Amino acid sequence: MAQLSENLLPAKLVLENLVEDKYVEEKYVLGIDGGGTKTLTRLVNLKTQQSWQAQGGSSSLTNDFNGAIATIAGLCRQVVKQAHASENKSSDDECDYQHISAVFGLAGAGNDKRVQQLIETLAMPFAQLSICSDARTSAYGANNGEAVAVVALGTGSVGMRLDGQGNSFLTGGWGFIAGDEGGGAKLGLAAVKITLTEFECHFERNKTHQCELASQIMQFIGATRPEMLTWLSTAKPCDYAKFSPLVFALALICPVARKLLAEHIQAVEYLIDLTLANTQLPLVLLGGLAEVTKACLSTKYQQQLIAAKGDALDGACFLAQQFYITQS
Amino acid sequence: MAQLSENLLPAKLVLENLVEDKYVEEKYVLGIDGGGTKTLTRLVNLKTQQSWQAQGGSSSLTNDFNGAIATIAGLCRQVVKQAHASENKSSDDECDYQHISAVFGLAGAGNDKRVQQLIETLAMPFAQLSICSDARTSAYGANNGEAVAVVALGTGSVGMRLDGQGNSFLTGGWGFIAGDEGGGAKLGLAAVKITLTEFECHFERNKTHQCELASQIMQFIGATRPEMLTWLSTAKPCDYAKFSPLVFALALICPVARKLLAEHIQAVEYLIDLTLANTQLPLVLLGGLAEVTKACLSTKYQQQLIAAKGDALDGACFLAQQFYITQS
Repeated sequence: MAQLSENLLPAKLVLENLVEDKYVEEKYVLGIDGGGTKTLTRLVNLKTQQSWQAQGGSSSLTNDFNGAIATIAGLCRQVVKQAHASENKSSDDECDYQHISAVFGLAGAGNDKRVQQLIETLAMPFAQLSICSDARTSAYGANNGEAVAVVALGTGSVGMRLDGQGNSFLTGGWGFIAGDEGGGAKLGLAAVKITLTEFECHFERNKTHQCELASQIMQFIGATRPEMLTWLSTAKPCDYAKFSPLVFALALICPVARKLLAEHIQAVEYLIDLTLANTQLPLVLLGGLAEVTKACLSTKYQQQLIAAKGDALDGACFLAQQFYITQS
Repeated sequence: MAQLSENLLPAKLVLENLVEDKYVEEKYVLGIDGGGTKTLTRLVNLKTQQSWQAQGGSSSLTNDFNGAIATIAGLCRQVVKQAHASENKSSDDECDYQHISAVFGLAGAGNDKRVQQLIETLAMPFAQLSICSDARTSAYGANNGEAVAVVALGTGSVGMRLDGQGNSFLTGGWGFIAGDEGGGAKLGLAAVKITLTEFECHFERNKTHQCELASQIMQFIGATRPEMLTWLSTAKPCDYAKFSPLVFALALICPVARKLLAEHIQAVEYLIDLTLANTQLPLVLLGGLAEVTKACLSTKYQQQLIAAKGDALDGACFLAQQFYITQS
């Protein structure tokens, strides 16, 4: 199984090569964008540019490893079958894996052992298979493989910088407990912590609220100690993340929400600084919190922002195409 | 099953009653101190003052609920059998539960549903059974049931105030994710977060260390991104807590450790303030971090400190005795 070179060609060069290329005869690329909630797969016939897509559940290697393997294997078979059906090929699809260059961008792919185990368990005879973090595929998608700094603000947070030579540099991505500052779960956690303090200092003693944010969160997590402990005992990062829109919504009327929002913006700007590492690259913000956060950033960060040109699935397919280029 | 009254008599009154008491004939008390690591049980014959003890694994209701039930049931049977053996009684021990007043002080007992489920599953016909947090039994043990503020600094953290009328007030105890500031796991987590930042900003780029604390922690959690992610993916609160002694040990030579120690002391003093709630009660610090933390507290806190007069097991037995007093 070939390893994908770290030194990749920029996007324009790839496209020029593909247009005139003899290597695209019967060649396919398969890209996967696998996150903690859903997984997207796309198979492309490089000659006809026909493509087939399928969607499934989580394929994060961190959360449910066996579930991730099942999701990925199922989605690969599904798009290959779709291609066979529309291209009138035999149903014996296994042999066709040899014509597919595949790149999986998966949450949790920083864990080498799990990646190795995934490759061994799948045992699909791709022409080449590379597995990398979804941060990497996001960055390749965001600026068509050209130099860029990408910061993803979803439930978690992570930064990725690509230079013009195809080198990538990761920042953050340490997970909910020890990292993810600037992400929705950590913002929601900060709001829950404020709520617990408010509960102990005011509500438990005299049933009054000093803070609108805490008052609203107590409607979800309860207003007695046993209720709150029960909520806390099962709360996952996505449960905390659900409170992050509330912080934005209440910032105008609640000083506590305003303070948390300021700390969130500070954390995002710190993550952007680490990701840019003193370069002046175009900056792309991705993920569910990207739009609401953008408006609150300082002017100097806003000026560096560009809109994403593609998503992580585009990035995975882009990376998979490199195989045919670097082979030539 | 009788509920333990919140309005308890102070210790001296209890002892005076017991000395002259007709109610101690064939009466027993059973106390349990159940934490995340070990569980201690003591059975006392109130007439002869003979006692029997046994020790088992975790009985935290949060971590492993079925394990906790098995531990508690096993330990209760064990001490009852010991008592029967040394008092030459029949081996049909079940009936004797009717002569036992029991108090379990358990980690995680803030969760009402689990407590109810534990009582139903155990189905032991005690004369009375009360289940409360180990924070409560610690506080009753710390000053023989008299008014006191107790702050426990172990892997987690929690505060408990007892007033002279037997009322108790809990502070913190929200668990590792949303609380436990001042405890060993949160201090260790802060050290690990510093290590991850140091890794990204210095070590990953040029293999140099700016900080002794980070350098030493990387010897445990690894010095490459995959190694660190693997460590983080399985790290539990007790794994983080293992780094807390390192922060104390390096505070003299490493400015980063010194800063973390100052933040730890600030968190402990905040927890003490919340626990005292403007009273001038004697203050007891318990748990593995108590001794090293004491020396760093501001003078005004040090002046309020007293040594613990008893432990959580003493507190559980003390509370169990109240049943016979309040019955009379």
